[in-house]
Amino acid sequence: MSAHPHFQRVALIGFGLIGGSIARAAKLQGLAGEIVTTARSEKTRARVVELGIVDEVVATNAEAVKDADLVILCIPVGACGPVAQEIAAHLKPGAIISDVGSVKGAIVRDMSPHLPRGIHFIPAHPVAGTEHSGPDSGFAELFINRWCILTPPEGTDTAAVDRLRGFWAALGAKVEVMTPDHHDLVLAITSHLPHLIAYTIVGTADELAQVTESEVIKFSAGGFRDFTRIAASDPTMWRDVFLANKEAVLEMLGTFNEDLAKLTRAIRRGDGEALFDHFTRTRAIRRGIVEIGQDSAAADFGRPHAALDKK
Amino acid sequence: MSAHPHFQRVALIGFGLIGGSIARAAKLQGLAGEIVTTARSEKTRARVVELGIVDEVVATNAEAVKDADLVILCIPVGACGPVAQEIAAHLKPGAIISDVGSVKGAIVRDMSPHLPRGIHFIPAHPVAGTEHSGPDSGFAELFINRWCILTPPEGTDTAAVDRLRGFWAALGAKVEVMTPDHHDLVLAITSHLPHLIAYTIVGTADELAQVTESEVIKFSAGGFRDFTRIAASDPTMWRDVFLANKEAVLEMLGTFNEDLAKLTRAIRRGDGEALFDHFTRTRAIRRGIVEIGQDSAAADFGRPHAALDKK
Ligand SMILES: NC(=O)c1ccc[n+]([C@@H]2O[C@H](COP(=O)([O-])OP(=O)(O)OC[C@H]3O[C@@H](n4cnc5c(N)ncnc54)[C@H](OP(=O)(O)O)[C@@H]3O)[C@@H](O)[C@H]2O)c1
Ligand SMILES: NC(=O)c1ccc[n+]([C@@H]2O[C@H](COP(=O)([O-])OP(=O)(O)OC[C@H]3O[C@@H](n4cnc5c(N)ncnc54)[C@H](OP(=O)(O)O)[C@@H]3O)[C@@H](O)[C@H]2O)c1
Repeated sequence: MSAHPHFQRVALIGFGLIGGSIARAAKLQGLAGEIVTTARSEKTRARVVELGIVDEVVATNAEAVKDADLVILCIPVGACGPVAQEIAAHLKPGAIISDVGSVKGAIVRDMSPHLPRGIHFIPAHPVAGTEHSGPDSGFAELFINRWCILTPPEGTDTAAVDRLRGFWAALGAKVEVMTPDHHDLVLAITSHLPHLIAYTIVGTADELAQVTESEVIKFSAGGFRDFTRIAASDPTMWRDVFLANKEAVLEMLGTFNEDLAKLTRAIRRGDGEALFDHFTRTRAIRRGIVEIGQDSAAADFGRPHAALDKK
Repeated sequence: MSAHPHFQRVALIGFGLIGGSIARAAKLQGLAGEIVTTARSEKTRARVVELGIVDEVVATNAEAVKDADLVILCIPVGACGPVAQEIAAHLKPGAIISDVGSVKGAIVRDMSPHLPRGIHFIPAHPVAGTEHSGPDSGFAELFINRWCILTPPEGTDTAAVDRLRGFWAALGAKVEVMTPDHHDLVLAITSHLPHLIAYTIVGTADELAQVTESEVIKFSAGGFRDFTRIAASDPTMWRDVFLANKEAVLEMLGTFNEDLAKLTRAIRRGDGEALFDHFTRTRAIRRGIVEIGQDSAAADFGRPHAALDKK
């Protein structure tokens, strides 16, 4: 007898960083009788066959969901509506259908209208990722000690929610339930705005007349390189996020701009005290993040250093 | 016979992250007959004695520089002018005096007027650091494969420049020479603006009415946590940097604001193509940084992951 939930057949639509990580972890934990997957391109599907992680790779989304007890869309946010429409008629009655999209309000809006009665629609978002994508980028440990947020519509069957919660817990995640709107506000500040800012500053550095790109690259260890990591994330995924979470992102951006204007004024006026006060306040959040294990306490994210060649 | 330069007596004024790292690496490489150091507080000086890395710990800056062939100020930028004045009369003729400040124009402006003829003033900035500070934070490997920028005034003795260049090379650094003004522009984009933006967004997240601090901390793995690292850096150091490099920082900030306004407009209008194009361009810089070894190719800066507890 196992404490983990078990699904006869799990369908993963999309096999990139997230789909590939779910597949690897679910196999390791024995959460599925069989895992079937598909991807948009023949190239990715062929690679997934080669990787040999899942039990079956099929060519269409409709085929993939056939007889599946759990279906998870692991594709860009903007693709979820059309794919829901495509698979709706093929879903097994009683199945759980979920996703991993970084925006939740738009997912509910785009998917719900297509889904038949008698299936359990439970949107989800694992707050875990890297800047890499594609079928080779996933790994079984990605979700360990990270949160997965579920946003079940009101009235969703609690047994189904519990099963999905158990699935994510078995992948190593902590699970929290909230409304789609609140999710989108929280992620706007903890993920979407940071990505927008990083994409912006890396673009700024790229276009400067006074400083060459080669200089930007060489001297990036002064802080800039930290931003280049998330600004190297997948363009399709992030285009979709900003289109789908426009309102919340613009709201956070408004507050950010006000705060930046305040600090700019302090610099312009030479107000050292205001700068010092602000820089002192911001240290507490880092401490909180390290304390609950959401980042490493090691200096510089624990980046490795070579040893000195002794003379 | 050694290929490395050798100084009879090296004085390090300030023993924090940078001073402490220089001391550790210079000892390991045998670059100094003896290293003498001091710090502002009795507490730090006592800790440096305990650490047992340097040969001598003295109570005053004037004492420290006595008979030293190489003097390096490893203190906040704003402290360099007053300390130059304090030590000027005690410098050994022919000595090299340098610093490690993150701004160079202001250092030249503040220190030069106090320094006597017959010494070699060669400002320096190792572009290497972590978010930690204090006497215990340093380590010998900090400068390996990082750049150290020298900004010798025109007419500086080339033999002296070569000796300092050799010293930094022996600590593991690559050395480049440029003017103070150009340094300040380059660092404004590669270091100062990223810190300002990070300090801003962490402050924004801290003050939101709609999202609690606990939520920000829990869901920080979506990208935000990357910014909290540099926003946890020393407030005194960073206050001084922004006061001392005001012009260049404000200039870069102007360009950044224009670029942010453009992306904001694209989001507001739902212009997916403009977003996609921008997000595609920014990937190249990351590749460049990884290729020349200024950051790790591993996903997520190589942050460690726990293993799944198998059921
Ligand atoms: N990356 C992160 O850090 C992260 C974190 C949390 C959540 N998420 C969310 O996870 C989702 C997937 O992201 P990812 O990083 O895993 O992306 P990814 O590595 O780029 O993989 C996306 C996968 O979706 C497939 N796909 C795209 N459109 C499709 C369609 N219309 N029908 C079927 N398959 C389709 C792709 O197939 P091809 O390979 O053939 O193109 C690929 O297998 C996104 O919604 C994102 O918001 C991402
Ligand atoms: N941190 C980085 O990432 C980094 C990177 C490159 C360059 N830098 C530059 O390196 C310099 C030092 O930074 P850090 O990170 O090493 O700082 P830190 O760890 O805070 O250490 C600063 C040291 O300076 C001493 N000090 C302060 N004011 C002094 C004074 N008036 N006279 C004598 N000693 C004084 C402090 O003594 P107490 O301990 O007694 O206060 C402490 O030992 C700064 O100019 C900074 O711009 C820093």
